[in-house]
Amino acid sequence: MNWLVLVFFVSVLALAYAALNFYSVKKVDEGTRQMREIAASIREGAITFLNYEFRIIAMIALLVAVLMGVVVGWYVGVAFLIGATMSSLAAFVGMRIATYANVRVSNTARTTKKLGKTLKVAFQGGSVMGLCVGGFALLGLVIVYVVFGLLLKQLSLENVYLFRNFLGIEFSPFTMTISGYALGCSIVAMFFRVGGGIYTKAADMGADLVGKVEAGIPEDDPRNPATIADNVGDNVGDVAGLGSDLLESFVGAISSGVILAFHLFLSSEAKNGGMTPSLLQKMFLYPVVLAGLGLLACVIGIAYIIVKELSEDPHRELNMSTWVSAGLTVVLAGFASWFMFRGEDLSGVSFNLGTFSPWIASVLGIVSGVVIGLIAEYYTSYDYNPTKSIAGASIEGPALTITQGMSVGMRSTMAPVLVLGATVIAAYGAAGMYGIAMAAAGMLSFVSTTVTVDTYGPISDNAGGIAEMSKLDEEVRAITDKLDSVGNTTAAIGKGFAIGSAALAATSLMVAYIFSFSPPEVDPILDIINPMTLVGAMVGTALPYLFSGMLIESVTKAARKMVDEVRRQFKEKPGILDGTEKPDVSSCVSIASEGALQEMKLPSYIALAFPIVGGFVFGAYFVGGILIGSIMSAIMLALYTGNAGGAWDNAKKYIETGALNGHGKGGPVHAAAVVGDTVGDPLKDTVGPSLDILIKIMSTISLIAVAIFSKYNLFAWLSSLF
Amino acid sequence: MNWLVLVFFVSVLALAYAALNFYSVKKVDEGTRQMREIAASIREGAITFLNYEFRIIAMIALLVAVLMGVVVGWYVGVAFLIGATMSSLAAFVGMRIATYANVRVSNTARTTKKLGKTLKVAFQGGSVMGLCVGGFALLGLVIVYVVFGLLLKQLSLENVYLFRNFLGIEFSPFTMTISGYALGCSIVAMFFRVGGGIYTKAADMGADLVGKVEAGIPEDDPRNPATIADNVGDNVGDVAGLGSDLLESFVGAISSGVILAFHLFLSSEAKNGGMTPSLLQKMFLYPVVLAGLGLLACVIGIAYIIVKELSEDPHRELNMSTWVSAGLTVVLAGFASWFMFRGEDLSGVSFNLGTFSPWIASVLGIVSGVVIGLIAEYYTSYDYNPTKSIAGASIEGPALTITQGMSVGMRSTMAPVLVLGATVIAAYGAAGMYGIAMAAAGMLSFVSTTVTVDTYGPISDNAGGIAEMSKLDEEVRAITDKLDSVGNTTAAIGKGFAIGSAALAATSLMVAYIFSFSPPEVDPILDIINPMTLVGAMVGTALPYLFSGMLIESVTKAARKMVDEVRRQFKEKPGILDGTEKPDVSSCVSIASEGALQEMKLPSYIALAFPIVGGFVFGAYFVGGILIGSIMSAIMLALYTGNAGGAWDNAKKYIETGALNGHGKGGPVHAAAVVGDTVGDPLKDTVGPSLDILIKIMSTISLIAVAIFSKYNLFAWLSSLF
Repeated sequence: MNWLVLVFFVSVLALAYAALNFYSVKKVDEGTRQMREIAASIREGAITFLNYEFRIIAMIALLVAVLMGVVVGWYVGVAFLIGATMSSLAAFVGMRIATYANVRVSNTARTTKKLGKTLKVAFQGGSVMGLCVGGFALLGLVIVYVVFGLLLKQLSLENVYLFRNFLGIEFSPFTMTISGYALGCSIVAMFFRVGGGIYTKAADMGADLVGKVEAGIPEDDPRNPATIADNVGDNVGDVAGLGSDLLESFVGAISSGVILAFHLFLSSEAKNGGMTPSLLQKMFLYPVVLAGLGLLACVIGIAYIIVKELSEDPHRELNMSTWVSAGLTVVLAGFASWFMFRGEDLSGVSFNLGTFSPWIASVLGIVSGVVIGLIAEYYTSYDYNPTKSIAGASIEGPALTITQGMSVGMRSTMAPVLVLGATVIAAYGAAGMYGIAMAAAGMLSFVSTTVTVDTYGPISDNAGGIAEMSKLDEEVRAITDKLDSVGNTTAAIGKGFAIGSAALAATSLMVAYIFSFSPPEVDPILDIINPMTLVGAMVGTALPYLFSGMLIESVTKAARKMVDEVRRQFKEKPGILDGTEKPDVSSCVSIASEGALQEMKLPSYIALAFPIVGGFVFGAYFVGGILIGSIMSAIMLALYTGNAGGAWDNAKKYIETGALNGHGKGGPVHAAAVVGDTVGDPLKDTVGPSLDILIKIMSTISLIAVAIFSKYNLFAWLSSLF
Repeated sequence: MNWLVLVFFVSVLALAYAALNFYSVKKVDEGTRQMREIAASIREGAITFLNYEFRIIAMIALLVAVLMGVVVGWYVGVAFLIGATMSSLAAFVGMRIATYANVRVSNTARTTKKLGKTLKVAFQGGSVMGLCVGGFALLGLVIVYVVFGLLLKQLSLENVYLFRNFLGIEFSPFTMTISGYALGCSIVAMFFRVGGGIYTKAADMGADLVGKVEAGIPEDDPRNPATIADNVGDNVGDVAGLGSDLLESFVGAISSGVILAFHLFLSSEAKNGGMTPSLLQKMFLYPVVLAGLGLLACVIGIAYIIVKELSEDPHRELNMSTWVSAGLTVVLAGFASWFMFRGEDLSGVSFNLGTFSPWIASVLGIVSGVVIGLIAEYYTSYDYNPTKSIAGASIEGPALTITQGMSVGMRSTMAPVLVLGATVIAAYGAAGMYGIAMAAAGMLSFVSTTVTVDTYGPISDNAGGIAEMSKLDEEVRAITDKLDSVGNTTAAIGKGFAIGSAALAATSLMVAYIFSFSPPEVDPILDIINPMTLVGAMVGTALPYLFSGMLIESVTKAARKMVDEVRRQFKEKPGILDGTEKPDVSSCVSIASEGALQEMKLPSYIALAFPIVGGFVFGAYFVGGILIGSIMSAIMLALYTGNAGGAWDNAKKYIETGALNGHGKGGPVHAAAVVGDTVGDPLKDTVGPSLDILIKIMSTISLIAVAIFSKYNLFAWLSSLF
């Protein structure tokens, strides 16, 4: 219990530090009246969307909580609500500060003309989101642990471990509660990622299509009524979406570790394998402690950057913060592993490297996260050949821009998969199945710094937009542009991290899923040449394609509504373009909000329906196939779309620098590259990130529902008739 | 043995009928001097490429044959060479006649002005390829059966069933020989599909990029030096490539049935399960007999169309030929199933529906092949909404053409997968694992008619090109255009068939793979949460992406070489464009040939290296993962690229009809659609078809090599050290 107290205090510390940063950012001046006005519109737009979302989330969350409460147990419903609340709080606070920080970043650039000082405000703004993700996630987990830890003590072991409720469904209250908590985080993340992803790209594509292409006005021009919606989108998709996504991976990784540990214990009991209850307790605790120490390391790593004098090289400063956090996490977690597992009888588990086994697995996760991020940078930065080749192909027109980008995106999938594969094998070698979950937990242990660095990007992007719209000096714009361009690189790395961690977390959730319906006395397997599993895997592999295809169409539909609205305004108020009339920005904001929430429903429901309906019709092995198929397929599609999209974006930027034989902005080569960039937009910012969530939420929901559908399904019932 | 005699005579009959059709097509007049000249250039270009290819194929085939002869057994090497020869013969004869038929089709249209008569020549030309595919494949199989059937009789059962060679490798000579035969067909198919696919699209894209886009001259304009290469490409990729691909699926499906039957027998022996040797013999024979009867049905179905008076509706006539062949196959195979299995003791196999079980499984395959074809038509024909939506999106410019096409392609994957899944479950229900192989064999049983109908398309396309280049009447062009547009639909259906059959064939080959290294006394499984298999599956899922990405780049590279050459000619001989100078077509033909063969190497070698190197390093379970991962992933990518590409092509054609609010040829909406079409070209004609081959050749090669690497691999050796 001492460890949990430590984790509790760390999470409170992180949240307190987030609050401190929140208020110190808010204290910064907002600048000119025009800047204030623009910032207020963006803030208002973001709040509008948040309100829309929270209304739906509240309804759905209550429904799911009641359903789980009735069918499984009340505490599962409660844990679910705690998860949903924590995730919502993190997203809410993080997005709130992002909409305060953006204008303050522009103003700092305007008043100080110093890159370092400007960077500090952006970073401090981002740190609020980062610290909230780590802080709220762990706070909720500690609550769940303590409440159900106490339950554990009060009830006898057997009752707690395998409880049979009034429907005859057998489950373990403790792990089921943890799963409920994870599902709460997932549901919220899905809304923010999918809804936010559609919002941001519908606004972006809509603004670009009619602004840049038809009216010939630059990006972030205040005459374009869709510009505010575009800037709102950055906050909605890239701040709230990314934060809740990583929060969900973080919780998913920890919970899969807990569930695996529990099933390893059950199977050891069934075989008299010698895993002690005390070791089980430690294995329950280790991922939470790892996360807690990681959070502590992040607080230090973040504070270091906020306190010190910053140089003019934002890339170096951001990296420094990551290295400090990651390095400290590695050291602290090593001590924890030693303290916790020394003296335990390890003969009942496959900790092949002794006391340090789980630690080594988590370090492997940390290393592979960094390597996958670097690979993403290689494929998407214009310093390297892949992106340059796309720029070069644009000389032959847009068709070759597209095919070359597809080619780069497709080829970019192999390297990160090899890294993930090596991590899985090595982590398994170190600590068995539990090791794979610990690798996922390790990759996410310094999530607060990752999120901080990632959130800094959209804040700077917004700051640039505000500078542009308020017609600030070139010099100011130069500072925000510099920050923004570094933000693009960190975004690519962050996406690699998001998909890498989602892949590991979903894989260990899937393994936990298979354990959870396999009888403890046999080794759990998922035989892929069992026809049910095989067909499930086929359907599962197609599912991310269906989901992605639907999302792309959703974005296009919403973008076209936006285009129609902007055209209508330009037509009805011809004064907008010559600056004599004001565009109506709020109508564009509502169109994006309503469009996003309207369009996200069908793909999300379909994605969730497949494992649930599949489970109740064909049973647990079919769903096992769906999970493995969709995890594999979604990893590839996410890597492909993320890297192709990033590379298209930067190929365009490369041409804009004039480095490609002087083909610059405005020429046909640039026009071809803009087509690539537009195609890449929904791929990298809607489809890719939504796929991360898809596989995690499918795994989590299956993990909960399998307790029911492994017992009650149509196929089993029909088979019993013959 | 009587059955084999029947099959032998059917294959001879089919080949004789092919010869008859060859000469009766050749008898038709070639038309004007200009037509003769153009046709001769195309023919010469095709022969040039064929010669290049055969030289490489011969070298590699000999190398592989010797290697297999030494490491496994001489007869395996011999069977491999028989397979390579049969496949090469079919491709050679089929492509030869296609280059005779094209000009004769144009001339028939010119002299008769009758669609029906023109159709007949095109169909008869296509039938040569179709009949050669069925005839040569079966002839070779009968030879292998008879030779090793005799061996079977001479040696005692035990020796034949599990033979241990001088390297200590255990295998069954009979099934290994069948696998060797299948691999021979695969290798040739890979060269024709991958090399031909790169050739055809490099020429097409190259010709379009510089012709239509830069010089503003129409497609198939004789002033464009790349036009002949473009027409050669249709023969190389769509005739020889498609024929050898389906030949390979056909043989793969049959051989996987044979191998599965054998392993079911071994496992029944080990468990005293009661499967009689006589039943095994029947299960060996049934797929060959099914194929033989299917070929007979095809001869009848093809002859029916050639003999009867044809209407002006080519679509109806082509469908008629398919229905006759498929219907007759169903009836004949039903009788065969009854004759063969009645009186056998079926208690040892899971023939859950009695004597007719294998027949029902094959009928399921036939039905699902047709349904998958219809789904492909729905997604790619402009009579339906998906393609219309792409045309509609083009109004907003090329970026939305691309995203909408991607969306359609991605969404189009689910429906065929559900059909395939239902087929797998139903076929398994009817006849166990053997049923899945029989479904694949059923889908391919009337392959000769499928190939005939598919080959008619490129012949008509070429005929149109020749008509255009020889400046024949509008009326003639109208006839060939009509034939060509029907050809586009049949091509989409044919692609659905190709990927559907490849999926089933590869799946049953994979199951055979797992059986082949599992000890007969246990039920073979492939546990996907075994870390080796899991990581193999991850790598396998990425492999088709890597392969596809490399292929797309290969096409672009070769196309850009072509563009450079055309630009050079236009610059050095300015008279070409005003018609006073002749373009040098042969240099474009050699650039395409050399480019294709150069560029196909790396992706092909990498694809083959993964299972082989993976096997010798990590062992059989890792490769099992690679196979399942790449089969699943390749099915999706092939459906996605095939359908997106087809839909882009037809969206452009739809706009050309003027049906989209009068946006016609030449406007910006059409230009946007042309971008989509160009992007789709390498996807649908290079990547998609090559993926079919990829999964089959990987499965076949693993099936052979596993005998060695399941015994000798680095991982096992290292494990034995500790």
